[in-house]
Amino acid sequence: MSQDRVTAAVLIIGDEILSGRTQDTNLNAIARYLGVHGIDVAEARVVGDVEDEIVATVNHLRARYDYLITTGGIGPTHDDITADCVAKAFGVPLYEHPEIIAMMTARWQGELNEARRRMARVPEGGSLVKNPVQGPPGFQIGNVFVLAGVPSIMRGMLEDVGPRLKGGAVTISRTVRVDGSGEGVIAEPLAAVAKAHPTLSLGSYPFFSNEGYGSNLVVRGRDADELAATLVELEAALRAAGIANVTHLDSV
Amino acid sequence: MSQDRVTAAVLIIGDEILSGRTQDTNLNAIARYLGVHGIDVAEARVVGDVEDEIVATVNHLRARYDYLITTGGIGPTHDDITADCVAKAFGVPLYEHPEIIAMMTARWQGELNEARRRMARVPEGGSLVKNPVQGPPGFQIGNVFVLAGVPSIMRGMLEDVGPRLKGGAVTISRTVRVDGSGEGVIAEPLAAVAKAHPTLSLGSYPFFSNEGYGSNLVVRGRDADELAATLVELEAALRAAGIANVTHLDSV
Repeated sequence: MSQDRVTAAVLIIGDEILSGRTQDTNLNAIARYLGVHGIDVAEARVVGDVEDEIVATVNHLRARYDYLITTGGIGPTHDDITADCVAKAFGVPLYEHPEIIAMMTARWQGELNEARRRMARVPEGGSLVKNPVQGPPGFQIGNVFVLAGVPSIMRGMLEDVGPRLKGGAVTISRTVRVDGSGEGVIAEPLAAVAKAHPTLSLGSYPFFSNEGYGSNLVVRGRDADELAATLVELEAALRAAGIANVTHLDSV
Repeated sequence: MSQDRVTAAVLIIGDEILSGRTQDTNLNAIARYLGVHGIDVAEARVVGDVEDEIVATVNHLRARYDYLITTGGIGPTHDDITADCVAKAFGVPLYEHPEIIAMMTARWQGELNEARRRMARVPEGGSLVKNPVQGPPGFQIGNVFVLAGVPSIMRGMLEDVGPRLKGGAVTISRTVRVDGSGEGVIAEPLAAVAKAHPTLSLGSYPFFSNEGYGSNLVVRGRDADELAATLVELEAALRAAGIANVTHLDSV
């Protein structure tokens, strides 16, 4: 890993994702959010509501990447065990956070049953992650951020995560759209340009629609000058291969 | 793991998922498809187009679960390295499959460049997975199925995977909808019923909409009689907790 690359892992927790009952959208939202901060999501995992799995995965991922973001399993029901598992992974106890208890007492006029109190538990040494949407906050401990699973709440919590991250260099991304040519003919000129620019990432994402087919070629990198020069080279290489229907989707 | 539980892992391969450029929907489609066959997805991972990561993850997951299904990285471009990685994981060479070469020759009237030939490569000992949509097939080697990343093609390929799986007992799933009560009050009766039935899986999935809020309680299991009895108990426990607005969404 190069020195200026800042990495994160995402851990999606919940049986409902693995059973297919729920379509996850949190990984995508987190990846885009971190991308803007110059942080690359290097790996993602989905695990069920199984204590041993969650504890082992949290410990593996937090050691391997700069940040770990988890989603899911922080509600009041018996299968919400993320706080317990993260505390266990760090080897610290959970305690009822007075700020959350105060918040809940105000919200529910003092009716705090056992299930609701579960949501007030934070590992010792953790700090709260604000929830601007509804319900109790998430928390941070070390390089691990523990967020809700409900997408609208998760995205709200992310806004309080960003300012705490030391960002890497911001990645610039440019897209070149090719119409009427498939990947079979695009692959060779693309590979030649990719080989000449090992510090850039070049990807090809084919599309098929009623209006036609083609591919979006995405070039990512840190250096705006190299990126601009590479786009010129790429277009020349495509033309040399007989591919003329090329559109730059971003203003460079 | 109990004897009759058949498990699978899903491995999503591609930088475009981790960068947030593409929203994955393949995990969800695979989970639902395998669920119908009585096979539980126990874990899922997303890795980038990085050889060492893919090889190590394929070997870990294929050893740990009954089946591994991968998606992505089997196109013609330089970043499509899934076939290479799976061959390496199994310690076998790749060869150009004559059936795929014949298919491509017919399709492209003999114009087989290097990039297209890449898509004809299959590990020794592998068998083809039919592609009823478009483009070359996927392949199976051992307990690993290697499918396309484009969702419509991936789903088409799945239809040729199902008949090769030894299914577990089929899981039955029933949903009870609670309107006008949040998880905070549902959690305790739900936990009590879950504790009394350790062989069943009980989950709570809250919803919020313009029309109101509530939660869908999903009970899964193998035994139809136990499931029916548990639904009666669950409804009684909810009523005892003052929750009366309960609807059974499935006919039992």
